[in-house]
This record gives sequence, C-alpha cells and structure tokens, in this order.
Amino acid sequence: MSGGATQLLRGLARDRSGRRRARSGRPLFSGALVLVVLSGSVAARSDEDAPIRSPPQNPIPALAAPTAPGRTGPRIMSRTAFDAGDLAWVTFAAIGASLMIPGWVLFYRARMGRPDLSRVAGQVFLLTCLVSLCWAFVTYSLAFGVNWGGESAPEADLVGPDGQFTGLPVIGGAGNLALRGLEPSAAADDREYPLRRRRDAVPHMLFMGFQMFVAMMGPVPLVVVLSDRVKTAPLIAAALGWSIVVYAPLAHWIWGFGWLRQLGAQDFAGGAVLQMAAGFSALTLLALLPRRASVWAEETSACSGMACLGGTLLWAGALFLSGGSALSAGPSAVAAVLCTHLAVCAGALAWAGAGWLRDGRATFGDLAAGAASGSAAIASCSGLVALQSALVIGLVSGIVCRAACTALATGRERGLMTVFAIQGAGGCLGLVLTGVFASSNFAGADHSGRPIEGLLSGNPAQLRLQALAALSAAALAAAGSALVFGTVRVLARGNWLTAEIQESASDSASA
Amino acid sequence: MSGGATQLLRGLARDRSGRRRARSGRPLFSGALVLVVLSGSVAARSDEDAPIRSPPQNPIPALAAPTAPGRTGPRIMSRTAFDAGDLAWVTFAAIGASLMIPGWVLFYRARMGRPDLSRVAGQVFLLTCLVSLCWAFVTYSLAFGVNWGGESAPEADLVGPDGQFTGLPVIGGAGNLALRGLEPSAAADDREYPLRRRRDAVPHMLFMGFQMFVAMMGPVPLVVVLSDRVKTAPLIAAALGWSIVVYAPLAHWIWGFGWLRQLGAQDFAGGAVLQMAAGFSALTLLALLPRRASVWAEETSACSGMACLGGTLLWAGALFLSGGSALSAGPSAVAAVLCTHLAVCAGALAWAGAGWLRDGRATFGDLAAGAASGSAAIASCSGLVALQSALVIGLVSGIVCRAACTALATGRERGLMTVFAIQGAGGCLGLVLTGVFASSNFAGADHSGRPIEGLLSGNPAQLRLQALAALSAAALAAAGSALVFGTVRVLARGNWLTAEIQESASDSASA
Amino acid sequence: MSGGATQLLRGLARDRSGRRRARSGRPLFSGALVLVVLSGSVAARSDEDAPIRSPPQNPIPALAAPTAPGRTGPRIMSRTAFDAGDLAWVTFAAIGASLMIPGWVLFYRARMGRPDLSRVAGQVFLLTCLVSLCWAFVTYSLAFGVNWGGESAPEADLVGPDGQFTGLPVIGGAGNLALRGLEPSAAADDREYPLRRRRDAVPHMLFMGFQMFVAMMGPVPLVVVLSDRVKTAPLIAAALGWSIVVYAPLAHWIWGFGWLRQLGAQDFAGGAVLQMAAGFSALTLLALLPRRASVWAEETSACSGMACLGGTLLWAGALFLSGGSALSAGPSAVAAVLCTHLAVCAGALAWAGAGWLRDGRATFGDLAAGAASGSAAIASCSGLVALQSALVIGLVSGIVCRAACTALATGRERGLMTVFAIQGAGGCLGLVLTGVFASSNFAGADHSGRPIEGLLSGNPAQLRLQALAALSAAALAAAGSALVFGTVRVLARGNWLTAEIQESASDSASA
Repeated sequence: MSGGATQLLRGLARDRSGRRRARSGRPLFSGALVLVVLSGSVAARSDEDAPIRSPPQNPIPALAAPTAPGRTGPRIMSRTAFDAGDLAWVTFAAIGASLMIPGWVLFYRARMGRPDLSRVAGQVFLLTCLVSLCWAFVTYSLAFGVNWGGESAPEADLVGPDGQFTGLPVIGGAGNLALRGLEPSAAADDREYPLRRRRDAVPHMLFMGFQMFVAMMGPVPLVVVLSDRVKTAPLIAAALGWSIVVYAPLAHWIWGFGWLRQLGAQDFAGGAVLQMAAGFSALTLLALLPRRASVWAEETSACSGMACLGGTLLWAGALFLSGGSALSAGPSAVAAVLCTHLAVCAGALAWAGAGWLRDGRATFGDLAAGAASGSAAIASCSGLVALQSALVIGLVSGIVCRAACTALATGRERGLMTVFAIQGAGGCLGLVLTGVFASSNFAGADHSGRPIEGLLSGNPAQLRLQALAALSAAALAAAGSALVFGTVRVLARGNWLTAEIQESASDSASA
Repeated sequence: MSGGATQLLRGLARDRSGRRRARSGRPLFSGALVLVVLSGSVAARSDEDAPIRSPPQNPIPALAAPTAPGRTGPRIMSRTAFDAGDLAWVTFAAIGASLMIPGWVLFYRARMGRPDLSRVAGQVFLLTCLVSLCWAFVTYSLAFGVNWGGESAPEADLVGPDGQFTGLPVIGGAGNLALRGLEPSAAADDREYPLRRRRDAVPHMLFMGFQMFVAMMGPVPLVVVLSDRVKTAPLIAAALGWSIVVYAPLAHWIWGFGWLRQLGAQDFAGGAVLQMAAGFSALTLLALLPRRASVWAEETSACSGMACLGGTLLWAGALFLSGGSALSAGPSAVAAVLCTHLAVCAGALAWAGAGWLRDGRATFGDLAAGAASGSAAIASCSGLVALQSALVIGLVSGIVCRAACTALATGRERGLMTVFAIQGAGGCLGLVLTGVFASSNFAGADHSGRPIEGLLSGNPAQLRLQALAALSAAALAAAGSALVFGTVRVLARGNWLTAEIQESASDSASA
Repeated sequence: MSGGATQLLRGLARDRSGRRRARSGRPLFSGALVLVVLSGSVAARSDEDAPIRSPPQNPIPALAAPTAPGRTGPRIMSRTAFDAGDLAWVTFAAIGASLMIPGWVLFYRARMGRPDLSRVAGQVFLLTCLVSLCWAFVTYSLAFGVNWGGESAPEADLVGPDGQFTGLPVIGGAGNLALRGLEPSAAADDREYPLRRRRDAVPHMLFMGFQMFVAMMGPVPLVVVLSDRVKTAPLIAAALGWSIVVYAPLAHWIWGFGWLRQLGAQDFAGGAVLQMAAGFSALTLLALLPRRASVWAEETSACSGMACLGGTLLWAGALFLSGGSALSAGPSAVAAVLCTHLAVCAGALAWAGAGWLRDGRATFGDLAAGAASGSAAIASCSGLVALQSALVIGLVSGIVCRAACTALATGRERGLMTVFAIQGAGGCLGLVLTGVFASSNFAGADHSGRPIEGLLSGNPAQLRLQALAALSAAALAAAGSALVFGTVRVLARGNWLTAEIQESASDSASA
C-alpha cells in the first residue's frame, strides 16, 4: 500500500506547489485533505506488522489477559463471534440516523424562509465527506480512545482499582489514530475482531462506524444556518474544526472515558453532544458574526410543506439514532425508539397546541418545529425513562422551545436563534429532565454498576450531575466555537463573509 | 412524575378556560390532546406501584403460572432475553412501513390532479401525531387488549378449555390503558419484559409499537382525498374518531382476540384492517358528503412522475409492512416480503398491460396505480401463499382494480372513488383469494394449531370464512364511518366544509 | 391455481389476438408479460407435487445426503432454523440497495442537464417490474442455477472430486425455473427451507430475492441515459434483454458456478457485474446509435442540487448493497459497509479536490460524481480489503474517473460517456485494485478454501485473475449489448428512435 500512497502523495504535493496561485480559502481545504491522506500513510508505515502486509501472522496484540499487569501496548479485547441481530441493528441504525442531515437542512431552511437548497446541499455533502474521513483517521481517537496518558495502564477494562478511568479524563489519546486497533486479525482458524470494551455486543470497528455517522451530523445545523453568510471554504473548514475542538472533547467527556461519565452523567443519544453543542455554538456565533443587514423573507406556504418534510426526516432519523445508541438490539433499544416516537408526537402537538390556545392559530410549520424540539429533548433520555415520562418530556419541550423561539427567533438573526431555541434549549431541557425521570427499570446500571435513577426515583444527585453536564457542555460549546471561528477569521484575513446577494446564484465550492 | 404532570394539566386547564373564545373546530382538537394527557396521568396515579417510582420492587404482576387458577389481575407473561434479530426486524419494519404514508399522499394527490402538497402534508403530520399518542394510551387497549370482561380468566394463553377466547370477543378491555402491562420490571438480576402472548418473539411493548405505526397509517387515505373539502379541525377529529370506532374494533376482530380470529379468518398484513376499512369508508362518505361542484383538473405530466414516486414509496412500505407483520424474522417473514414484491410488480404490469391491450395506450401513472392495487390485494395473503400464487394474485388485482377504477373513478368524485376502487376492491379481492391460495407450507398453523389452508389445498371452509370477514369488515367500515362523520357534522354545527377555492392558499391548521 | 391461471391466460390470449392492430413496439412488451405468466403456469403444471396443492406431503426432494451417489434430481440442502439477524440483514439490505435506482436516475439526469424526470421515472418503474418478474421465473435460474448439464451430478456441494464445479461453467441450467427448488416443504413438525449451498446463512428463497433486487438495478443506467433517444417499448425490451444476455451470464461467471469464480476471481458487490457491465455497454452503444444532432444543455444550478441528492442516494444504496453482498450479518459485512463509506467520501473529495487544485474551481456536482466513482470502484473490493486501503481506492478512483470524464464526457454524447467514465472506468479500476489490496484478514477464503490475497499480500496471481475478469466482463458487455440492441433494431424495423423534440412533453408508455 505504501507505494501507491506515496505516489499519490507526491502527485498531490506537486499539485500543491502549483496551488499557491489559488485563492485564499483553498489551502484550508486541501490542507485538510492532505492531512487525512498523510495520517493514513503515516499510520500504515508506523504500524510495522499491519494486517494488510502479513495477514497470516497475528498483527494485533491478542486479547489482553486481565491478570497480566505491566503491559505497555494498547489493550485490545477481541471476540470471534457476534450476534447477527446486534450487528444488523447498529449498522442500519447508523445509516438511518443520517436522515437527520436532510431533516435539519430542510427544516432550518424552511424556518428561514429560504427554499433554495442547491448551495447548502453541496456544502453539507462536502462537510460529511470531510468529517467522515477526519473522524475515522484522527478525531475518533481523540473522542473515544483511551484517556490521554492512560494507554499503558494494566487493567483490561480501563477502570483503575479506585473505580477511576486511567489517564487524563479530558481527551482521548493517540491509540486509535488511523484506525489502529480496530481491524480484525486472523487467529488460528477464525478472524478475531477487537472490542472497544469487554462485554460489548459489536466489534470496535462498528462502534467507530456508528459514531462516525453520528459525528457527521454534528456541525450540520451550523452550516445550514450560516450557508449564505460565510464563504464555502472557511465555513467548511470551521465546521470541520468545530467537530475536532467542540464535538470530540464533549463526546469524550460524556460518552468516552471522560470526567462526566466518570461522575455518572447520562446522555443517551446526544442531547448534550449533538443538540446542546450545536445550539450553544449558534448562540456564541451570534455575538461573533457581524449583524445581518437585511431582514429575512417571510415564511411562505412552500416553506410550510418543506418544514413538514424536514420534520418528518428528523423524526425518522431520531428514531434510528435513539435505537442505535443502545449499541445492541435489546428491548431497551426498542424502548428508546418508542420513547423517541412518543416524545416527538407530544412535542409537535404541544408546540402547535400552545400556539392555538394562545394565539388562536397554528401553522403546519409549528408541528415540524415541535417535532424537532421533542426530538432534541428526548435525545438525552430516550433509553433511560419510561414511555409515560417520554410523553411528559415531549409536551414540556414543545412548550418551552416554543416560548424560546417566540421570544428570540423573530428578527434578523432568525437562523442562528432557531438553532439555539430548539437544539440548545431543547437539548438542555432534556439533559436536565433525565435527572428527574431516569428509571433503572429502563436505564439499568452505569459503567460502575450503580443503577441509574433520577429525582422521582429518589436520587436527587443525578439531577445535580445532569445540571453540571449541561453547564459544561454549554461552556465548552461557547469557548470552542469562539476559538474555531476566530481562528478561521484570522486565517482568512477577514475575507470570509459572502456578499449576501450572490447566494442564490452561486454554485461553486470556490466561492 | 405526578407532580410535573399535574402542574402541566393545571396549566392546560387554565388555558382551556381561556379557549372558550376560540373558533368552533378547536375544542375537538384540544379535547383530544387533553384526553391523552389525562389518560396518562390517571393511569400513572391508579397504578400505585408504577415502575417509575419504586424500581427495585417488582411493580408488575410477575409471570402468571399457568396452573394458578382464580387470579384476578391481568395475566402477564414475561421474558428476559430476546433474539436481537427479531427485535431489529420488527422495529425497522415498523419504521419502514410508514413509507406508505407519503406513498398514499403522493399517489392519491397525483390521481386527483392536485400536485400541491403543503396543506395535506401538514394535515397528515398532525394526524399521525394524534393517532400515535391516542393509540399508545387508549386505542391499543381496545384493539389488542384481552377481551372485554375476560381480564380475570385464569388461563395464561387466553384460550378457554373449549378453545374459545375468554371474554366478549368484540372489543378489547381496559387492561392496557396508558401502557399498563407493557413496561419492564426489574427481576432479581435482569429486567423482565412482558410478552403479549406466550411464545411471542418480541416484547409486548414492541408489539404495541409496531401496531402503532400500522394504525398511524389507517386513516391517511381518507384525509388525503378529503383534504380540500373538509376543514382541518373536523377532518382530523373525524380521522382520529375513525381510528377508534372503525380501525380498533376491526383490528380486534381479526388480529386481536376477536370473533373472526376465533373462527379462523386470516388477514396477514392488513388487507381488511387497513385497505378495506379505508376503501369502504370512502364509499360511505361518498353518500354522506355533498357533491363536489367542480370537475377535477386533468392529470398532468408532473402528476405522472408524482404518481410513480408515490407508487414506489407504497411499494417499499408494503414490503416492510408485510415483513413486519410476521412479528419475527423467520423465513416466512422473508417469503411475505418476496410475495409482496412479486404481487406489486404483477399488479403494475397487469394494470398497464390491460390498458395497453384494450385502449392501445397506458400511462406511467397506470403503473403506479397497478402497484397500489397489487399491494392492497397481497396485504391479506403475503405470508400465507406461495410465491407463484402471489404472481397470480397481483395480476388479477391489477385487472380487477383497473376495471373498478375505469368504471367508477372518472367523474367529480374521483378522489373517494379511487380509494374505493384500489383499496376497497383490491383489499376485498385479496382477502377472498387468501381463502383460495393459502398454503400451510407458508402459512403454518393458526392460534388453535389448525393448519391454514385454502380452497386449492382442499379446504373450502376457509374461503367461506374469508368472505364472511370481508362482509363484516365492509359493514363495520360503512357503519362506523357514517357514525363518525355524522357526529362531527353535528358537533361542528354544519360548519365543516371548506370553500374549495381557499384550498391552495390556506396553510393554517385553524382553517 | 391452474384453473385461475389458465383462465387468465385464455383472457390474455384473446386479447393477444386482438392486439395485432396495435403499434409496432407493443408485441415486445406484451410478449414478455405473457412469457412470465406462461413460465409460472408451465412450471406449476410440470411440478406435479407442488407445495401449493398437497402441503402435508413433502413436495420437494428432501435434504440430499452427501454420501448418496447417483441421484438425478436437483440437489437441495435444507434447514429448519436460521439466525433472525442474518435474515433481517439481507432482507433490509436488499430493499435499501434499491436506493441506487433513484440515485442513478437523479445523478445521470443532472449530469446531462435534464432535470425533468417524469418520463424516465415511469420507464424505470416499468423496467424494474419486468426485470423482477422475469428474474424470479426465468433469469435467476440462468444466473445462479447449477451449471448447465450439471444438475444430475452426485456431490451435494456442487464441487467435483477435482475441485471443479460440475457441468458447463458458462450458464446456469433450468433447475430453478419458475422458482422451483426455492420453496419450503413441511417436514414432520417444522417447515424446512432449501439452501442454495451448504453452510449458507439464509434460505435459497432470500438469496434469490436479494439477487432480484440487485439485478433490478443492472440496466437502469442505460435506460436513464437513453430515455429520450429510444422509444419506451424498444428501450425497455432491450433493457430486459440486456439483463438476460449480459447480466445473467456475467453474474453466473463471477458469482454463480461459472469459470471465473472457479478460477478464483473476486467481485464482492458488483464491480464487474453491475458497474462494468453498464459502463462498457454504454461504450458499445455509442458506436451503434446514430449521433445526437443537438448539443446538451449546460448544467444548471438546479442540476447541481439534483446531482447532490442523486449522489447521496447512490451513497446510501451502495452501503446497503455492500453490506448485503456478504449474505450474512457478520463483522465482515460491517467492514464492507465501512469500506464503502470511506471510499465514497474519498472519491468525492479526490474528484472535487483534483478539479480545485487543477482548475481553481470545483462544483458541488463534482462531489456527487466523485461519490459515484468511489462507489463504483469500491464495489468489487468492499468486503475484501482493509479500511485504509478503501481510502486509497476511493482517492484513486476519484482522480482516474475525473480524468476519464474530462477527456470523454464533454460533447454531444455526454450521457453515455459519463456512464462509461464513471461506472466502466471506476468498476474496472476497482476490479483490478482488488487484486492489489485484497487481504485475507478481511476477505477470508474462497469456495475452495484458499485465502484471498492480493499483490500486497504477496500473491500476484490474484492481480492477473482480476485483469482477466475485467477483460471478460468488458468483452461480454460489448458483445451482448451489441447483440441485444441490434436485435431490437431489427425487430422494430428501424422505427425505434424518438424524435427528440417530443421528449419532455411525452408521458405515455406507448411513445
């Protein structure tokens, strides 16, 4: 492989020297591309006994015996046979969850009164490709790798004798860069597949793949609402940076081996990592970006149908995302799907019903907005609460997010404010309500064996934890997005905003 | 939970007192919303040891020993472990089956020559939210609960010593109101999930969820063709009422513990419950509603593409619905999927081919209509007949439904008549042909262990039974829909029809 | 059944005598329809103890004991229980893979600058119905049946004592015509389902169904680009013929019991059978068809969004197709999905990035084209190479296909040339690169137990084999498509091309 890769890199390098003539935004893009190729090639070279060259030997350190202290390589547990149903569930859920991407595109563009989609569709397409490759080769290791500095600890399950994760619980180490430690090795007769953790139902590779599909969605809402304000190259570069600087650490804190998971904070399907991160980043950008000059167009009838379609896709995507987040096909995964369905329905009815009871009218676009807020709120709790609680969470989220949207998302900044009012407020609400409604009948126990219970089950500590998680997520999103967009502004030497009039005509990624 | 729910209810009640000023259609809508919330809250209160408050205790009556006579609570069988593949199959099939909803919207609107979709999309969105919540908390118990009056019978499998279901086999009792009896309970070490019946492959909760996705679709065809004749609030109220008054009893009769299933009538994937119910209700409404003043627009070229897209979605949705109706992922579920595929293809070719051979021309819209008729006809039989029989059923349905459509669905009432010609005639045809082609090699045995066989397997009794089922379904649909729409007309004091000219401009749910 | 079928046939025959008055293109269509019906009816009659008539008897020859020499019927292995997860995986993957059909329609029409889709959507709908039925009843046996002349050989696994498949390894025999040998039989207590080969994870029926969904797609690209040059009837007849004359033998050679598989050539998910066959047929048709008079319209902004949507659907469909091609839900199926995802991302970035570095600009349509080329190239290798290799294959395919497309697909023949540049060149590239990157860690062993390894694993023989497979596929596609379109031209007496001006107005299948 190294021959082909080297040749390819040389060709790219030659082209790169010629690209100095190019416009200012381009280096960011091609730099990212080259980074991905390089990382793959470096990893392949550094991994001397990579499976691709000498398959009959066992290229990956075998199943670490839990009693073998003092090993220094990354610990890899592996298994030969998996349940076909678990693999089918998680794989299809990953693919299905990406329905949320067109869902957000259609829904937010409809709310903004901009039904032209060519430009934003292309930008999102570009973004998902970049984030996917960057995730597989770089970001995954930061988000879900063993803690920085903890790769050489002896315990196979990554939990120290004091019940703490080993290493610095803030960011993942370099142990899984370039897909290291994820690929099968040929044992005596069968291939063995490494697991991420003991007792996992799916191979490490599929865990990475599922998280890749989730991570792909993370920056989409920001791209959708900024699509016609920021030029394509700086926008996509910033979104990619956001997925490294905001998404990856937050995922590590709550889903990986980080400090919030260590404490016991719960986020089942991305209420903090997906929804709040995007929502609070949108709030931050509002302060950073220059004001819009013009007022948005009014929502039209065509936009109402588009919002309904977007809301439907969000709905379907949220069902898959919740189910897949269980990471195996047990009944609790099914409960997560049903909770999400009920919460989305309740959110839609609550938003539209509140508008009807209060103002005497409700548009169909309100139903879609309510569905979006229900899906944002239930994300944190879908697999952790009873179905009846999901109904209540959905109703509350529809009313709260409608209030936020009515108060904030009316003027010139309707795009960013809608993201905050729905994903930020809804995600935050759901994260906190998890601490109220979580029931160990559905949620089971956390990594340390402690049953997950909320305030109504007599455990107020969980509510405090969830509030801490919400605060941390909001702070990280605000700081990280300010850092990323500030850096892009500096690198682009100020030349990063579009002349808004060009937006509908422009079709080229070089804009 | 009761704290939050009570507060929420109080808030809604305060708003409700203010809503007296509202327009006439609104009470129906908000009444339904409040009903759902109330039922959840009442159920939570009446269920004193609900899992959400005291999870360590076993809140649901445990597995009823089949030898314990004289128990008085609802009988709940439960299981700890399920096959991941069965759960994945039924869950994804449920989500995929809802592709039929946009399929019907696009297909019928294209046949009616009305390509504007904003209004109908919003109405269907609202309807699915309402039906879902109402189903989970109320209707499910009526449709699939233990027979009225039979909750206290001793047998665990609900079959009396004489082979009869206990209780009144006409409607379900209140045993599963507000999701009672569906939620897991924590056993010693593991959670136990209640089953609906012994030997079920999926938890009761998932059975309810699958049926919720199916029930969601039931009233959609009626809403689609009435969308621009009836105002939104009475239309949705009527559709919701229809799902309680027509759909739920019919489902109980054929799929639940009702008298038709008791006798041995078969409906695999909704030929009677979904297709005939909608079709014969459409025929009834034709007599009830005032005539249309204007003639429909001609079908245009854009409508032809829209019909093809709608037909494709119906096709895909029917594949999922048939597969999921097997309620586990065995080879007979696969056979149901393949039967559906072949019947849809055959229906499309037969309809278009008959037109071609007879009139010398066929439009692409004819292919879509044929596909819809094939999917309506195969619904009853998909898992019960051989693949070759599915071909014949598809061909016959295409020819019969085309004849019905040509004879009836031409004039001013093209919308309702198309629903009758395709779903009514097609569903009825399939239900009867099940009695001809059913083969125990595919269908296996019914609940009493008797092999399911049709006329060609030497069992003419099944054909009589299927004809009886068809008659009963038609009668129930006619009577129930007349009752529901009559009631709505009275409640709306005659102010329920739209001025047809407003239809394309109007966007608001308050219309 | 024979009663109904006979009556139906008589009716069709009566109509057939009347159809002599019809226009010239019609006999082809109705002939195909009648052929399908006839084959079903003949098969049902020839199969005297068909399950549909006498289910209690065991209608299918039971599990052939591997030690019973001299049996003369078709050998059928059967099994009673399957893993639900495998069935769910393969069934849903089959349905999901058909997302490639709208993907190709949208993508190629966008590249051709023709956003009107009604006509082509109808043609593709008609084609998929026809190919499905023809596949189930006729073509499947040719493609995947036991070799011609080998039906009576004694070995149960169809491999002779010299390791060769029995029979003539060029085309399948008639053993599975009209679904013979695929349907379950009732054993003592349980139904038994025949397998295609020993150790298969899914029933023969499902294998046929999966391949039906794949075969359905085969001729779609040709229909899409020829849609407005050839009249509907000859076009669909030719496409159906193509699926019999080109697709079926090629599938038999590489995937069935044919000579290329015998030698050890590998094509995981249709790089040769789907992609190259269409691409090289397009190249041949370029020489056969008269030149276009007019130049294509320029690509517009609307087309760019349409191309992105098409590319997205192709992307999703390719994920399902790759996963399903593993024919069970093991971790290697998961690896195939992830390989495809990474290759599609890499292809999109490489195509767009190459354009940017070279010309200073890249359109969003380029991203879609790159995704299509990545999916074409990875098709051959998805389950056979490491994830890192998939990245390299995707990057190379994006650059190579862009070069081919820039050199060839610019002038009047942009449609056909784009199919060649993306599917032909991309598929060929992937097929050859399989011989470079294949790794037995992912690919395991072939049917004879030999590990599958490429050049980088020290096995240059595989590279030669893959080149041979590429040559054979190209030759078969060229010869077969020339034969089919030549025959159609003769049968249509030259009256088969549309007047191009009619194209956008025409809506009727009789055009």
